Amino acid sequence: MSDRLIIFDTTLRDGEQSPGASMTREEKIRIAKQLEKLKVDVIEAGFAASSNGDFEAIKSIASVIKESTVCSLARANDKDIMRAGDALAPAERRRIHTFIATSPLHMEVKLRMTPDQVLEQAVKAVKLALQYTDDVEFSAEDGYRSELPFLAKVCEAVIKAGAKTINIPDTVGYAVPSLYGEFMRDLRTMTSNSDKAVWSVHCHNDLGMAVANSLAGVAIGGARQVECTINGLGERAGNCSLEEIVMAVKTRRDFFDLDVGIDTTQIVSASRLVSNITGFVVQPNKAIVGANAFAHASGIHQDGVLKARQTYEIMTAEDVGWSANKIVLGKLSGRNAFKQRLEALGIEMDSEQALNDTFQRFKDLADRKAEIFDEDIHALVSGDGTGGESEFYRYVSLVQHSETGERPKARVVFSVDSREVVSESEGNGPVDATVKAIEAEVRSGAELLLFSVNGITSGTTESQGEVTMRLQKGGRIVNGVGADPDIVVASAKAYLSALNKLQSKHEKLNPQV
Amino acid sequence: MSDRLIIFDTTLRDGEQSPGASMTREEKIRIAKQLEKLKVDVIEAGFAASSNGDFEAIKSIASVIKESTVCSLARANDKDIMRAGDALAPAERRRIHTFIATSPLHMEVKLRMTPDQVLEQAVKAVKLALQYTDDVEFSAEDGYRSELPFLAKVCEAVIKAGAKTINIPDTVGYAVPSLYGEFMRDLRTMTSNSDKAVWSVHCHNDLGMAVANSLAGVAIGGARQVECTINGLGERAGNCSLEEIVMAVKTRRDFFDLDVGIDTTQIVSASRLVSNITGFVVQPNKAIVGANAFAHASGIHQDGVLKARQTYEIMTAEDVGWSANKIVLGKLSGRNAFKQRLEALGIEMDSEQALNDTFQRFKDLADRKAEIFDEDIHALVSGDGTGGESEFYRYVSLVQHSETGERPKARVVFSVDSREVVSESEGNGPVDATVKAIEAEVRSGAELLLFSVNGITSGTTESQGEVTMRLQKGGRIVNGVGADPDIVVASAKAYLSALNKLQSKHEKLNPQV
Repeated sequence: MSDRLIIFDTTLRDGEQSPGASMTREEKIRIAKQLEKLKVDVIEAGFAASSNGDFEAIKSIASVIKESTVCSLARANDKDIMRAGDALAPAERRRIHTFIATSPLHMEVKLRMTPDQVLEQAVKAVKLALQYTDDVEFSAEDGYRSELPFLAKVCEAVIKAGAKTINIPDTVGYAVPSLYGEFMRDLRTMTSNSDKAVWSVHCHNDLGMAVANSLAGVAIGGARQVECTINGLGERAGNCSLEEIVMAVKTRRDFFDLDVGIDTTQIVSASRLVSNITGFVVQPNKAIVGANAFAHASGIHQDGVLKARQTYEIMTAEDVGWSANKIVLGKLSGRNAFKQRLEALGIEMDSEQALNDTFQRFKDLADRKAEIFDEDIHALVSGDGTGGESEFYRYVSLVQHSETGERPKARVVFSVDSREVVSESEGNGPVDATVKAIEAEVRSGAELLLFSVNGITSGTTESQGEVTMRLQKGGRIVNGVGADPDIVVASAKAYLSALNKLQSKHEKLNPQV
Repeated sequence: MSDRLIIFDTTLRDGEQSPGASMTREEKIRIAKQLEKLKVDVIEAGFAASSNGDFEAIKSIASVIKESTVCSLARANDKDIMRAGDALAPAERRRIHTFIATSPLHMEVKLRMTPDQVLEQAVKAVKLALQYTDDVEFSAEDGYRSELPFLAKVCEAVIKAGAKTINIPDTVGYAVPSLYGEFMRDLRTMTSNSDKAVWSVHCHNDLGMAVANSLAGVAIGGARQVECTINGLGERAGNCSLEEIVMAVKTRRDFFDLDVGIDTTQIVSASRLVSNITGFVVQPNKAIVGANAFAHASGIHQDGVLKARQTYEIMTAEDVGWSANKIVLGKLSGRNAFKQRLEALGIEMDSEQALNDTFQRFKDLADRKAEIFDEDIHALVSGDGTGGESEFYRYVSLVQHSETGERPKARVVFSVDSREVVSESEGNGPVDATVKAIEAEVRSGAELLLFSVNGITSGTTESQGEVTMRLQKGGRIVNGVGADPDIVVASAKAYLSALNKLQSKHEKLNPQV
């Protein structure tokens, strides 16, 4: 029988730490549900002690997720562990993931603690965590730059204290596969009770090798858990990407000989959901989930593909949930067909009212657009915050005009806490004029970090455009998304959506594990 | 003394094969110049026999590049090699790269040749190529899925025939690092005259391991040339990315002990140039060149960074050419300051006239925008085709209006072969109306595959927006780019630019090496 490789997804914790990728509670719940559908073993839902918002998000996820284990990060101190334990209380399966740095540099410069103090604190943290759950994971932050004898001593002690999973992160993305694999192997050899725990790898992608390093930790080092994120989301160059790890292990089963429980046909949906919510685009040449990942060019190669698929294909687009861009609905589609399509797409509505509202918007869109694609439906749903995002500001209507030789103008009507306001401005372009019109009324003073638009249905400029606006204010960064066939209207919606998020977000700590 | 690792860039050949990434001759020359500035050892400029356009592009590049070796791909037949030789004739340093498939599957299904025939043809091709240059590279297509004894026999024969470089591609991106490294090592051991050639790796990224596989080919397998592309551009999930390979070897010099000749401070400029020209976005969490690659989030981590940079940084943003987003020029800047800035940015103008035209557009922009960033200048230059792209269609002016409850309208004035036309249309949004107005006159019938917008200067909606439109017609795919503070105007420019390219592009073959 083959061993099982545990897939630990940290999109909602380490992924969310990426500047600009922070999510609302509702967005985190939507992603968690998709991760459960993907059948990931463990969902790291956040870092409970970092903020009240994160605490509440973990608690909500712990309440709705039934199949996957729900996990919270916690520093190795009493307060963090108690917060994690409390947030996870509603979960069917819960894990506390506690960490402390073990590298000389981190212990000395960051923690200002002696190795003995670190060891003692690690053991104490694991013991406290065990009062909340028997599933405790310990991470040695900056583990790969730690001294092996000391690290082995720490691992031995926390396993003895009851930790079931030991994770060794390459925190700065410095490893190369063979060295990291050998490090893991040597560490396990030096840890006398290593067989009492599952060993885990957590690699960052600074040198582009997070996936290969993780797999070396598995194949050479004997790890049986990989920590990863959808689309490789994460700070700097990101984390190990879930879709690449999973497809590498499945495609090269001849080499790895490991089972993974993932339903790969849910990968593309998960990728799009995370990309939509965070506003982080997936580049076309991204492995597995990029738009070109399964696209073949012309000439010699197409000839080869026609002659025998396996000449150039090692896996199929269907394996990972790509399907042809089908026309699924149109003007004449009824409420029932719409509801069925939502279900097929994995979109859940919280109430009949939410369904009715979305169906109404679908009909409005169908009045202006002949063919409704799956992506249009995703945009329709994500653009409005089905999850109940606060709608302090709400778009009503817009007039805009631009003409060579004149300053572009916009007049925006929107509601502020249910009171309707009308505001006008000029600007350098119609989008600038629209934003200035809104700001003339709101005066948020937020700084715009990113403005991007994607024609989301391939085909024509008749499609809905999806606009992402990333705003920063007082150190907090949020993404607003808006969809409309009119790009200026979509921009107004995106800006108001970002302002709504600025209203509701909290600051929090971002640890490095 | 350390060995030298040869960097062979194939952005212009294998990268360009990516659906939607095809480039004009002028664009290829601009990228080649930047690659020379980056100090790559070999520039694979194209596949001469694939089209007249590619032949001409290689010939032009061979004429302007002085430091790097210029290379053309050629199948192992007389006609291809003669075309490559002719295209490369003007080069100071030239290489012919000939290939034939050696895997059982490819020989049988695609080539319909026996192994003996393949061997004979490979040797014949190398001998013919030697009549044009003494620098001949041989690639065994699908080499990693070939049988070792036969592959070694082929390698031995082509080295004996005079090939100086032997390249073993993982054509389908199927390898894992340890296996690929051992394969290269065993192949070299089995090739009796292996010391007479430089061994080369060429990996695809389908499972996300192109960089790690290439480096295993180097560290375990003894290869001393890596074939790679800027941004990992290439078909499907792309090729091994140049920036990751180079920074891994530099950052982990302790392990690889190899010299690379690359000027790393030119990496970010090269990345942006390729992304601008192809319209292929670089995701924010891409290693080295992603917008977030060197961005750190708040909390524990920032604290760590402040305490000691090396706690979280293994290389610096400056190493790879990121610099702060500086305000460099404004309304009062003169022609000389502008010229100096162009030089600092590595942008070359073909003539005084081109410089004067660009300076005029800079002043026009400065009239509408207070602060001009480096990215604005890049957009200004790339949006207009300094390289002399044909301007059959040219934007003149535009009026557009949208208002909730009415159909958006646009009136576009543009010239067709110097004759000015005015065209109006309604549409689902102002961009759609603009495109429909242009099409009402031009009737190209092209299909729009992609529409995307990036606010290119971080900061405000006052910045220039850069629009990419990807059109397809009769199997040909082109990208048009347009920049303007008014997104609708930028869209009109992008659409006209794409139509100009459709006028001038040729079809060609895309081999799989």
